[in-house]
Amino acid sequence: MSEIIYFEDTEVGSSIEFEPLTVSREEIVDFARAFDPQPFHLSDEAAALTHFGSLASSGWHTTALAMKMMVAAWQANPGMQAASLGALGVDELRWLQPVRPGDTLHGQSEVIEKKASKSRPEMGIVKTLVTVFNQRDEPVLTMKPIAMFRTRPA
Amino acid sequence: MSEIIYFEDTEVGSSIEFEPLTVSREEIVDFARAFDPQPFHLSDEAAALTHFGSLASSGWHTTALAMKMMVAAWQANPGMQAASLGALGVDELRWLQPVRPGDTLHGQSEVIEKKASKSRPEMGIVKTLVTVFNQRDEPVLTMKPIAMFRTRPA
Repeated sequence: MSEIIYFEDTEVGSSIEFEPLTVSREEIVDFARAFDPQPFHLSDEAAALTHFGSLASSGWHTTALAMKMMVAAWQANPGMQAASLGALGVDELRWLQPVRPGDTLHGQSEVIEKKASKSRPEMGIVKTLVTVFNQRDEPVLTMKPIAMFRTRPA
Repeated sequence: MSEIIYFEDTEVGSSIEFEPLTVSREEIVDFARAFDPQPFHLSDEAAALTHFGSLASSGWHTTALAMKMMVAAWQANPGMQAASLGALGVDELRWLQPVRPGDTLHGQSEVIEKKASKSRPEMGIVKTLVTVFNQRDEPVLTMKPIAMFRTRPA
Protein backbone atom coordinates (compact mmCIF):
# COMPACT_ATOMS: atom_id res chain seq x y z
CA MET A 1 0.00 0.00 0.00
CA SER A 2 1.28 3.46 -0.94
CA GLU A 3 1.98 5.99 1.74
CA ILE A 4 -0.52 8.82 1.88
CA ILE A 5 0.76 12.00 0.26
CA TYR A 6 -0.35 14.60 2.78
CA PHE A 7 -0.63 18.37 2.34
CA GLU A 8 2.81 18.70 3.95
CA ASP A 9 4.32 16.48 1.22
CA THR A 10 2.99 18.65 -1.62
CA GLU A 11 5.58 20.88 -3.23
CA VAL A 12 5.03 24.08 -5.21
CA GLY A 13 6.36 23.44 -8.71
CA SER A 14 5.70 19.69 -8.67
CA SER A 15 3.49 18.38 -11.46
CA ILE A 16 1.67 15.29 -12.68
CA GLU A 17 0.92 14.28 -16.26
CA PHE A 18 -2.50 13.09 -17.47
CA GLU A 19 -2.76 10.03 -19.74
CA PRO A 20 -4.36 10.68 -23.15
CA LEU A 21 -8.12 10.35 -23.57
CA THR A 22 -10.09 10.41 -26.84
CA VAL A 23 -13.56 11.94 -27.01
CA SER A 24 -16.18 10.64 -29.45
CA ARG A 25 -18.98 12.44 -31.29
CA GLU A 26 -21.52 10.40 -29.34
CA GLU A 27 -20.01 11.43 -25.98
CA ILE A 28 -20.02 15.11 -27.01
CA VAL A 29 -23.68 14.98 -28.06
CA ASP A 30 -24.74 12.89 -25.02
CA PHE A 31 -23.12 15.33 -22.57
CA ALA A 32 -24.66 18.32 -24.37
CA ARG A 33 -28.14 16.73 -24.36
CA ALA A 34 -27.85 16.10 -20.62
CA PHE A 35 -26.36 19.42 -19.48
CA ASP A 36 -25.77 22.01 -22.22
CA PRO A 37 -28.20 21.49 -25.15
CA GLN A 38 -27.15 24.54 -27.14
CA PRO A 39 -27.43 23.88 -30.91
CA PHE A 40 -23.68 24.16 -31.63
CA HIS A 41 -22.99 21.35 -29.12
CA LEU A 42 -25.59 19.05 -30.75
CA SER A 43 -24.95 19.04 -34.52
CA ASP A 44 -22.54 20.09 -37.24
CA GLU A 45 -25.40 21.78 -39.07
CA ALA A 46 -26.24 24.14 -36.20
CA ALA A 47 -22.55 24.74 -35.39
CA ALA A 48 -21.96 25.79 -39.04
CA LEU A 49 -24.18 28.82 -38.35
CA THR A 50 -21.75 30.03 -35.65
CA HIS A 51 -18.02 30.74 -35.35
CA PHE A 52 -17.59 27.10 -34.20
CA GLY A 53 -18.00 25.97 -37.83
CA SER A 54 -18.65 22.34 -36.85
CA LEU A 55 -19.64 20.38 -33.74
CA ALA A 56 -17.75 21.47 -30.61
CA SER A 57 -17.98 19.99 -27.12
CA SER A 58 -19.58 21.90 -24.28
CA GLY A 59 -16.87 23.65 -22.30
CA TRP A 60 -18.30 21.85 -19.26
CA HIS A 61 -17.72 18.53 -20.99
CA THR A 62 -14.09 19.48 -21.71
CA THR A 63 -13.76 20.49 -18.06
CA ALA A 64 -15.30 17.23 -16.84
CA LEU A 65 -12.82 15.34 -19.06
CA ALA A 66 -9.97 17.33 -17.49
CA MET A 67 -11.24 16.18 -14.07
CA LYS A 68 -11.51 12.59 -15.30
CA MET A 69 -7.89 12.64 -16.49
CA MET A 70 -6.73 14.28 -13.25
CA VAL A 71 -8.52 11.76 -11.01
CA ALA A 72 -7.07 8.90 -13.11
CA ALA A 73 -3.61 10.36 -12.52
CA TRP A 74 -4.26 10.61 -8.75
CA GLN A 75 -5.68 7.10 -8.60
CA ALA A 76 -2.61 5.72 -10.36
CA ASN A 77 -1.02 6.78 -7.07
CA PRO A 78 -3.44 5.76 -4.30
CA GLY A 79 -1.50 7.80 -1.75
CA MET A 80 -2.57 10.90 -3.65
CA GLN A 81 -6.27 9.98 -3.82
CA ALA A 82 -6.26 9.14 -0.11
CA ALA A 83 -5.37 12.74 0.77
CA SER A 84 -7.93 14.41 -1.52
CA LEU A 85 -10.84 16.15 0.20
CA GLY A 86 -12.47 17.85 -2.77
CA ALA A 87 -12.16 21.46 -3.83
CA LEU A 88 -13.39 24.88 -2.77
CA GLY A 89 -13.64 26.10 -6.35
CA VAL A 90 -11.75 27.06 -9.45
CA ASP A 91 -10.26 30.34 -10.64
CA GLU A 92 -9.63 31.50 -14.20
CA LEU A 93 -11.19 28.62 -16.13
CA ARG A 94 -10.59 29.31 -19.85
CA TRP A 95 -11.74 27.41 -22.93
CA LEU A 96 -9.07 28.27 -25.47
CA GLN A 97 -9.98 26.07 -28.46
CA PRO A 98 -13.07 24.04 -29.32
CA VAL A 99 -12.79 20.29 -28.65
CA ARG A 100 -13.99 18.24 -31.64
CA PRO A 101 -15.17 14.64 -32.16
CA GLY A 102 -12.15 12.33 -32.27
CA ASP A 103 -9.81 14.75 -30.48
CA THR A 104 -7.31 13.09 -28.13
CA LEU A 105 -6.66 15.19 -25.05
CA HIS A 106 -3.78 15.06 -22.62
CA GLY A 107 -2.68 17.40 -19.88
CA GLN A 108 -0.90 18.22 -16.70
CA SER A 109 -1.41 19.74 -13.28
CA GLU A 110 1.22 21.82 -11.52
CA VAL A 111 1.12 22.99 -7.89
CA ILE A 112 1.34 26.81 -7.92
CA GLU A 113 0.45 27.71 -4.32
CA LYS A 114 -0.22 26.05 -0.95
CA LYS A 115 -1.41 27.34 2.38
CA ALA A 116 -2.65 25.92 5.68
CA SER A 117 -6.34 26.28 6.47
CA LYS A 118 -6.94 28.56 9.46
CA SER A 119 -10.39 27.22 10.25
CA ARG A 120 -9.68 23.53 9.58
CA PRO A 121 -6.29 22.30 10.82
CA GLU A 122 -7.02 18.82 9.41
CA MET A 123 -6.70 20.12 5.86
CA GLY A 124 -4.54 22.38 3.71
CA ILE A 125 -5.35 24.27 0.53
CA VAL A 126 -3.43 23.59 -2.69
CA LYS A 127 -3.88 25.68 -5.84
CA THR A 128 -2.85 24.08 -9.11
CA LEU A 129 -2.64 25.14 -12.75
CA VAL A 130 -4.30 22.52 -14.95
CA THR A 131 -3.62 22.66 -18.70
CA VAL A 132 -5.29 20.36 -21.24
CA PHE A 133 -3.96 20.04 -24.79
CA ASN A 134 -5.31 18.42 -27.94
CA GLN A 135 -3.40 16.03 -30.22
CA ARG A 136 -1.73 19.03 -31.93
CA ASP A 137 -0.46 20.17 -28.51
CA GLU A 138 -2.69 23.25 -28.69
CA PRO A 139 -3.97 24.19 -25.22
CA VAL A 140 -7.77 23.75 -25.15
CA LEU A 141 -8.35 24.49 -21.46
CA THR A 142 -6.58 26.06 -18.50
CA MET A 143 -7.91 26.40 -14.94
CA LYS A 144 -6.71 26.89 -11.39
CA PRO A 145 -8.51 24.52 -9.00
CA ILE A 146 -8.33 25.24 -5.29
CA ALA A 147 -8.21 21.79 -3.70
CA MET A 148 -8.14 20.55 -0.13
CA PHE A 149 -5.75 17.88 1.07
CA ARG A 150 -5.44 16.11 4.42
CA THR A 151 -2.73 17.29 6.75
CA ARG A 152 -0.48 14.72 8.42
CA PRO A 153 -2.03 13.53 11.68
CA ALA A 154 -0.22 14.93 14.72
CA MET B 1 -40.91 33.91 -33.41
CA SER B 2 -39.14 35.90 -30.70
CA GLU B 3 -36.86 38.71 -31.67
CA ILE B 4 -33.21 37.95 -31.13
CA ILE B 5 -31.82 39.51 -27.97
CA TYR B 6 -28.50 40.85 -29.22
CA PHE B 7 -25.48 41.96 -27.20
CA GLU B 8 -26.73 45.56 -27.53
CA ASP B 9 -30.02 44.59 -25.83
CA THR B 10 -28.27 43.12 -22.77
CA GLU B 11 -28.36 45.36 -19.70
CA VAL B 12 -26.03 45.30 -16.70
CA GLY B 13 -28.20 44.51 -13.67
CA SER B 14 -30.77 42.47 -15.58
CA SER B 15 -31.30 38.92 -14.38
CA ILE B 16 -33.04 35.66 -15.21
CA GLU B 17 -34.35 33.02 -12.81
CA PHE B 18 -33.72 29.28 -13.19
CA GLU B 19 -36.58 26.81 -12.73
CA PRO B 20 -36.04 24.24 -9.95
CA LEU B 21 -34.33 20.94 -10.69
CA THR B 22 -34.03 17.91 -8.39
CA VAL B 23 -30.93 15.71 -8.43
CA SER B 24 -31.13 11.99 -7.62
CA ARG B 25 -28.62 9.66 -5.96
CA GLU B 26 -28.35 7.71 -9.22
CA GLU B 27 -27.50 10.85 -11.20
CA ILE B 28 -24.85 11.87 -8.65
CA VAL B 29 -23.20 8.46 -8.76
CA ASP B 30 -23.47 8.15 -12.58
CA PHE B 31 -21.81 11.54 -13.13
CA ALA B 32 -19.06 10.71 -10.63
CA ARG B 33 -18.40 7.32 -12.26
CA ALA B 34 -18.08 9.00 -15.66
CA PHE B 35 -15.98 12.03 -14.72
CA ASP B 36 -14.97 12.30 -11.05
CA PRO B 37 -14.79 8.85 -9.43
CA GLN B 38 -13.48 9.99 -6.07
CA PRO B 39 -14.80 7.80 -3.24
CA PHE B 40 -16.85 10.57 -1.52
CA HIS B 41 -18.83 11.10 -4.77
CA LEU B 42 -19.61 7.37 -5.10
CA SER B 43 -20.95 6.14 -1.73
CA ASP B 44 -22.15 7.24 1.69
CA GLU B 45 -19.69 4.82 3.28
CA ALA B 46 -16.61 6.44 1.70
CA ALA B 47 -17.98 9.96 2.24
CA ALA B 48 -18.41 9.18 5.95
CA LEU B 49 -14.61 8.98 6.20
CA THR B 50 -14.31 12.63 5.09
CA HIS B 51 -15.74 16.02 6.09
CA PHE B 52 -18.57 15.40 3.55
CA GLY B 53 -20.16 12.96 6.05
CA SER B 54 -22.41 11.40 3.39
CA LEU B 55 -22.63 11.24 -0.42
CA ALA B 56 -22.01 14.62 -2.09
CA SER B 57 -22.16 15.42 -5.81
CA SER B 58 -19.02 16.22 -7.76
CA GLY B 59 -18.64 19.98 -7.95
CA TRP B 60 -18.48 19.51 -11.74
CA HIS B 61 -21.88 17.83 -11.62
CA THR B 62 -23.32 20.76 -9.66
CA THR B 63 -21.76 23.11 -12.21
CA ALA B 64 -23.18 21.11 -15.14
CA LEU B 65 -26.61 21.29 -13.48
CA ALA B 66 -26.22 25.07 -13.17
CA MET B 67 -25.54 25.15 -16.92
CA LYS B 68 -28.55 22.93 -17.59
CA MET B 69 -30.82 25.28 -15.63
CA MET B 70 -29.33 28.34 -17.34
CA VAL B 71 -29.76 26.91 -20.86
CA ALA B 72 -33.37 25.95 -20.00
CA ALA B 73 -33.99 29.56 -18.94
CA TRP B 74 -32.47 30.86 -22.20
CA GLN B 75 -34.41 28.38 -24.30
CA ALA B 76 -37.66 29.45 -22.65
CA ASN B 77 -36.89 32.65 -24.56
CA PRO B 78 -35.62 31.57 -28.01
CA GLY B 79 -34.43 35.10 -28.76
CA MET B 80 -31.87 34.65 -26.01
CA GLN B 81 -30.59 31.25 -27.23
CA ALA B 82 -30.31 32.62 -30.78
CA ALA B 83 -27.71 35.19 -29.66
CA SER B 84 -25.56 32.80 -27.59
CA LEU B 85 -22.13 31.97 -29.00
CA GLY B 86 -20.64 30.02 -26.11
CA ALA B 87 -18.22 31.26 -23.48
CA LEU B 88 -14.56 32.17 -23.14
CA GLY B 89 -14.38 30.83 -19.62
CA VAL B 90 -15.48 31.28 -16.03
CA ASP B 91 -14.01 33.25 -13.13
CA GLU B 92 -14.35 32.60 -9.40
CA LEU B 93 -16.26 29.32 -9.48
CA ARG B 94 -17.01 28.38 -5.84
CA TRP B 95 -18.66 25.27 -4.38
CA LEU B 96 -20.12 26.59 -1.13
CA GLN B 97 -22.12 23.63 0.16
CA PRO B 98 -22.25 19.95 -0.81
CA VAL B 99 -25.18 18.95 -3.02
CA ARG B 100 -26.92 15.81 -1.74
CA PRO B 101 -29.24 13.18 -3.23
CA GLY B 102 -32.77 14.58 -3.43
CA ASP B 103 -31.71 18.22 -3.25
CA THR B 104 -33.79 20.60 -5.36
CA LEU B 105 -31.71 23.39 -6.86
CA HIS B 106 -32.79 26.73 -8.25
CA GLY B 107 -30.82 29.79 -9.23
CA GLN B 108 -30.35 32.99 -11.10
CA SER B 109 -27.98 34.75 -13.47
CA GLU B 110 -27.33 38.49 -13.34
CA VAL B 111 -25.42 40.54 -15.92
CA ILE B 112 -22.54 42.26 -14.09
CA GLU B 113 -20.39 43.56 -16.97
CA LYS B 114 -20.49 43.90 -20.77
CA LYS B 115 -17.94 44.98 -23.35
CA ALA B 116 -17.55 44.95 -27.12
CA SER B 117 -15.00 42.54 -28.59
CA LYS B 118 -12.10 44.37 -30.24
CA SER B 119 -11.04 41.45 -32.41
CA ARG B 120 -14.52 40.19 -33.34
CA PRO B 121 -17.06 42.95 -34.08
CA GLU B 122 -19.78 40.32 -34.66
CA MET B 123 -19.82 39.46 -30.95
CA GLY B 124 -19.79 41.11 -27.53
CA ILE B 125 -18.66 39.79 -24.16
CA VAL B 126 -21.08 39.55 -21.24
CA LYS B 127 -20.00 38.62 -17.72
CA THR B 128 -22.68 37.28 -15.40
CA LEU B 129 -22.90 36.22 -11.77
CA VAL B 130 -24.61 32.83 -11.51
CA THR B 131 -25.84 31.72 -8.08
CA VAL B 132 -27.37 28.30 -7.39
CA PHE B 133 -29.29 27.61 -4.17
CA ASN B 134 -30.63 24.42 -2.57
CA GLN B 135 -34.17 23.94 -1.23
CA ARG B 136 -33.16 25.69 2.01
CA ASP B 137 -32.09 28.74 -0.04
CA GLU B 138 -28.47 28.14 0.94
CA PRO B 139 -26.11 29.09 -1.90
CA VAL B 140 -24.33 25.95 -3.13
CA LEU B 141 -22.47 27.46 -6.11
CA THR B 142 -21.44 30.85 -7.46
CA MET B 143 -19.52 31.56 -10.67
CA LYS B 144 -18.89 34.33 -13.17
CA PRO B 145 -19.16 33.02 -16.73
CA ILE B 146 -17.73 35.15 -19.53
CA ALA B 147 -20.13 34.57 -22.42
CA MET B 148 -20.22 35.75 -26.02
CA PHE B 149 -23.37 37.12 -27.65
CA ARG B 150 -24.06 38.17 -31.23
CA THR B 151 -24.04 41.88 -31.98
CA ARG B 152 -26.93 43.37 -33.99
CA PRO B 153 -26.13 43.14 -37.72
CA ALA B 154 -25.26 46.54 -39.22
